[in-house]
Amino acid sequence: MSEITNNKLLQRLNRIEGQVGGIKKMLENDRYCVDIIHQINAAQAGLEKVKKLILDRHIRGCVTRGIKNGDDSIVEELLEVIERSFK
Amino acid sequence: MSEITNNKLLQRLNRIEGQVGGIKKMLENDRYCVDIIHQINAAQAGLEKVKKLILDRHIRGCVTRGIKNGDDSIVEELLEVIERSFK
Amino acid sequence: MSEITNNKLLQRLNRIEGQVGGIKKMLENDRYCVDIIHQINAAQAGLEKVKKLILDRHIRGCVTRGIKNGDDSIVEELLEVIERSFK
Amino acid sequence: MSEITNNKLLQRLNRIEGQVGGIKKMLENDRYCVDIIHQINAAQAGLEKVKKLILDRHIRGCVTRGIKNGDDSIVEELLEVIERSFK
Repeated sequence: MSEITNNKLLQRLNRIEGQVGGIKKMLENDRYCVDIIHQINAAQAGLEKVKKLILDRHIRGCVTRGIKNGDDSIVEELLEVIERSFK
Repeated sequence: MSEITNNKLLQRLNRIEGQVGGIKKMLENDRYCVDIIHQINAAQAGLEKVKKLILDRHIRGCVTRGIKNGDDSIVEELLEVIERSFK
Repeated sequence: MSEITNNKLLQRLNRIEGQVGGIKKMLENDRYCVDIIHQINAAQAGLEKVKKLILDRHIRGCVTRGIKNGDDSIVEELLEVIERSFK
Repeated sequence: MSEITNNKLLQRLNRIEGQVGGIKKMLENDRYCVDIIHQINAAQAGLEKVKKLILDRHIRGCVTRGIKNGDDSIVEELLEVIERSFK
């Protein structure tokens, strides 16, 4: 099941990689700034989604296991990740 | 200790309330848009900080306890809060 | 018309001020963290909307006039406001 | 000069493309979630910077020219771009 999720994440990342490549072509072809910005928005939304899916997996997995095993450092690390990842 | 933290949070919220009142006065006095926007940024940063402090407390407290007690719904709820709170 | 818009902005700010007051009461009454966070999200969305409305007015008014009058500094200021206001 | 700026933007986008490729490899190699999230944060910060640089160029160029030529639609379009690009 974790395997499938990795595949889905990789599919999303492939699409994002293609979008970044598309942004480069748009720049090289002097496409209209506003169209380029919309394409960047799409890539950013894609990365945000992947980040939340990985954070989701991290919390369900490592964090839950760590807390059950009395590992307080996993909580500190999670709080730091949230602090740094969302502004 | 939780009491002290509540006091600190209330101090921050009092300051934010004052900032929102200040924004109203700036509007009424036809102050320059850019100055008003900077004041809104300050109030927003204040709310973001309070939100992260409360989420921090929630994760250290309720979530950690819930997981130790085998309450899976607390994890689902946390994931939904993160999803809705950070964009 | 600017008068009406100011009134509408003040109505929105009154609602936000009430929400911040509500957050304080929720803290004092030891309400559930997650409910408090949702209330903070609501206040933040309110401030974001007011900020965009004021930026909108600024661009339609001051910025447009400034550019027509050959005032380049208004463009520099706008770029700095966008840089500082959106992260 | 616009040429140089395009080159600099392309350099940034190449780096971002490399970071997205790196995120894929980290996933395939089952690297620690938190490390992957930090790498996603880096790619997101890179895209945000490119977006602001392009918006900057758009405002200094197209928007300023459009306003001077009495083209009101360029202002409406700018407001919509800001609305959609910053949350």
